[in-house]
Amino acid sequence: MNKKNLAILMRARMRAAANQEPLRQQQLFQPAHPNSPPQQDNVDENNSTTPERVTLKDVKEWMQASISIPTGKLEPVDANLEEFSQGYLTLDQEGRRELLLALARDYDVNRARVRDFMRQYLSLEPHGGATGDQESAELEDESVLAAFHRTERNLRNALKPMYAVFFERLNERPGGLKLLAILRADLLSVLVKENIPSLRALDSYLKEKLITWLSPAALELHQITWDDSASLLEKIVAYEAVHPIRNLLDLKRRLSVGRRCFGYLHPAIPGEPLIFIEVALLKDVAKSIQEVLWDDPPIPECEATCALFYSISSTQPGLSGINLGKFLIKRVIDLLRRDMPHITTYATLSPIPGYMQWLLSKLASQIKLSKSETENMNDVSEKGSISAFRENILLPEEERMILNSAVEHGAGKSAIEIMQDLLTASEWTKSDHLLAVLKPPLMRLCARYLLKEKKRGKALDPVANFHLQNGAVIERINWLADQSEKGINQSGGIMVNYVYRLDKIDENAQSYFSTGDIHSLLPSPVS
Amino acid sequence: MNKKNLAILMRARMRAAANQEPLRQQQLFQPAHPNSPPQQDNVDENNSTTPERVTLKDVKEWMQASISIPTGKLEPVDANLEEFSQGYLTLDQEGRRELLLALARDYDVNRARVRDFMRQYLSLEPHGGATGDQESAELEDESVLAAFHRTERNLRNALKPMYAVFFERLNERPGGLKLLAILRADLLSVLVKENIPSLRALDSYLKEKLITWLSPAALELHQITWDDSASLLEKIVAYEAVHPIRNLLDLKRRLSVGRRCFGYLHPAIPGEPLIFIEVALLKDVAKSIQEVLWDDPPIPECEATCALFYSISSTQPGLSGINLGKFLIKRVIDLLRRDMPHITTYATLSPIPGYMQWLLSKLASQIKLSKSETENMNDVSEKGSISAFRENILLPEEERMILNSAVEHGAGKSAIEIMQDLLTASEWTKSDHLLAVLKPPLMRLCARYLLKEKKRGKALDPVANFHLQNGAVIERINWLADQSEKGINQSGGIMVNYVYRLDKIDENAQSYFSTGDIHSLLPSPVS
Repeated sequence: MNKKNLAILMRARMRAAANQEPLRQQQLFQPAHPNSPPQQDNVDENNSTTPERVTLKDVKEWMQASISIPTGKLEPVDANLEEFSQGYLTLDQEGRRELLLALARDYDVNRARVRDFMRQYLSLEPHGGATGDQESAELEDESVLAAFHRTERNLRNALKPMYAVFFERLNERPGGLKLLAILRADLLSVLVKENIPSLRALDSYLKEKLITWLSPAALELHQITWDDSASLLEKIVAYEAVHPIRNLLDLKRRLSVGRRCFGYLHPAIPGEPLIFIEVALLKDVAKSIQEVLWDDPPIPECEATCALFYSISSTQPGLSGINLGKFLIKRVIDLLRRDMPHITTYATLSPIPGYMQWLLSKLASQIKLSKSETENMNDVSEKGSISAFRENILLPEEERMILNSAVEHGAGKSAIEIMQDLLTASEWTKSDHLLAVLKPPLMRLCARYLLKEKKRGKALDPVANFHLQNGAVIERINWLADQSEKGINQSGGIMVNYVYRLDKIDENAQSYFSTGDIHSLLPSPVS
Repeated sequence: MNKKNLAILMRARMRAAANQEPLRQQQLFQPAHPNSPPQQDNVDENNSTTPERVTLKDVKEWMQASISIPTGKLEPVDANLEEFSQGYLTLDQEGRRELLLALARDYDVNRARVRDFMRQYLSLEPHGGATGDQESAELEDESVLAAFHRTERNLRNALKPMYAVFFERLNERPGGLKLLAILRADLLSVLVKENIPSLRALDSYLKEKLITWLSPAALELHQITWDDSASLLEKIVAYEAVHPIRNLLDLKRRLSVGRRCFGYLHPAIPGEPLIFIEVALLKDVAKSIQEVLWDDPPIPECEATCALFYSISSTQPGLSGINLGKFLIKRVIDLLRRDMPHITTYATLSPIPGYMQWLLSKLASQIKLSKSETENMNDVSEKGSISAFRENILLPEEERMILNSAVEHGAGKSAIEIMQDLLTASEWTKSDHLLAVLKPPLMRLCARYLLKEKKRGKALDPVANFHLQNGAVIERINWLADQSEKGINQSGGIMVNYVYRLDKIDENAQSYFSTGDIHSLLPSPVS
């Protein structure tokens, strides 16, 4: 790699650092900085080749022309799509918003057509009269069946929104898939502010199409190494969302002996993995990120018995909600099994991105309830209804230790108030005493968070939900596993090992899917 | 390439030759021998790893299990799909037929569910009552719109046949796309004999899915060279459908100086182009295949001004009707334009596979009509109705020349009868005299066949239709351009040049698509 490429890599890293965003719960499938794609991207958003200033009106007209030319086995729409693709990228946020709204509203389903076909369908007799002889009844059945199939095909077509053809035509063009991902990323940010039905429908339809086009059959598993191009490695540096890559040496180490990095490439987005995963080859399942991010490999690769997945990052914010990670993990396990039969354990060392947020809001609500209870001491009925939501977050022993040890922190405060104070500041991590006091409740509540807290029947924690639905089990939670500022803020420094037991993956996934049951080796939390 | 690989290549060629099938009209997108895939195929149909004899019942059960497990973000169906994939390939023709019939009939659309959603949809009020104030009317509109979108999504799902999930799950697996192509090839051969509605619907749905999965965005353009693997080159030898590759030297020449070969690869079917195109770099647009299939390049590449597409072949009979060639030609033109700016003409030298078949059936029907006319000489009304279909296929001058020159061929026969006799035997190609006599009518009628004979508003000849819909024009027809047995049988040895004029491609395609008008430089045929 020459000096220029090194410089590019370093600049990308610096840009990434400068754009570091506050941590978010959904970080698993969002890059660390979705608003700053790395420089020299496939689609260069700043480099418009159109000589004159492109207006929103122009771009709308190109869109309109791209959609309205009748469908056929040809593409006279190419020129319009090309203009649109370039024009769209020159629009500012507000311009893109207006364009997406126009697309969602003006090119929706043709409802009159749908209704016509429906009436036609409902008028079809499910079974022929069958009063005649058998042969003629069969013939009639055949023609009725043919009418059903024909009307169903017509209905399937009619139920396609008019923007369907626009997405399809874009996807067929070089650079089109990437543009569709950008379009969806923009759409998702508009939806955050304006959650209106037609935009939701547009998003849901586009997402469905992207899932089809990004079918795992169309993705190529690529082992990323130091021999890859700087433009590809630059993206790894920029998009590593779990454990940021500090410098070039750090990147080189992650691709060298004792580690592996694999990405999914799509032919339409060359040189840019859509998602990538980092693996460390270890003797045992690591208990902390320090054991993984060593400078020199602790063991020769041939002695490794555990493949530890320590980071998985997506590069395209527009593919949010499209689970490519599931297939990537499966493919990587298959590949490692074949190449390294001495590896018998496939595990992760994963962040618990939602834990602290959940715990702090739990503490806050309990403090509030407890105050209301005190204030309404005389009103029995009121008290009763409040008590229904009150719970003892801390065990008596934990409460006592916190109260005893933290006299200086707040006279007259309850244990959960002191705990809230401690956790919102970060000094506790520097005191061995406080670490010892907080470890039992933090570990116990973390197990509860992972095992018991659900959203729509699935694990509340997004990373937990991701691995559980892939068929992993929760093996162990690790104290002081990630002492970076991010690790402390997210999960009090706790990390979790999920394990993929090859003979149980399907069974676990099936049981999690159908019942929401979480398989775990953790002791059941006393809540 | 070592000796063993050479031997494999040669064997593949010999197999191909031994399996040579009678010529068919639709050959453009069918390999020369669809029933004999080359040996050592990705999916080895003869190598079942299942120890016991697999029965149709087993395979049906695996299919059933693969479909009926509920959809979710997991694949506990993997084992069943694996069994099915292996089992299906061990079934004989009859077993596959029964299985496809079961799939088409038992996993069709759930019509009761469709009707429920339809009634729900039809009960939705297109616009809210709007009797209240504006704000509440808007809110109501929003919720009505949301209900429309929701029901439309439900309907789209309900209108998916139950086998949709089976195709989707198969496609997600390694080797799945290839199996789906095999399934469709089998389905197409069943349909030839049993054209029943549910099988037609199964085919139409599967074709639609394959079109989505084989979107050009997912295909990789690959230049095929002598450096490619023997397993890939073996497929080029086996599937070259237009001008068979005679031997290893012939193959090597087609990949060497003065020529190019490009294929479309899909990540899910590695090492096997789905379709490939052969290009010769020439000074002028070639008039005969002899000018193209030279042993030594006639000119240095840098002097070439014409890229001549002389062969395009598909390797997957199951992808019949899915026009990948259109995108391939476009991509290849783009690539050559970039790499070889001295090339200014993009043309083809193409077979006219349907010409002789059309001409002979035309001659036969005219002979029959002419006989009926003679027999019913006295019945005026009958004669009138026959005359409506009678036409003078030959010009008086042509008729005279045929009658004059062919005295020995049949006393008392009409000119069209003599022409029929001559064309059904092949001696005429060996007589300079007969060649001179037949050239004017054969060339004139060939122009008419290409320009005027239509099927559903499009060119009757499949190769003509293919290039015209891609935006090419008919430039020239060439006498004695392909004197191989196949060339004589298909088109009396005539070949045609289609030309892709880069600045007119879209315009031509658009006009052909909307009006069926054929752009041509041929003199308009006097019919």
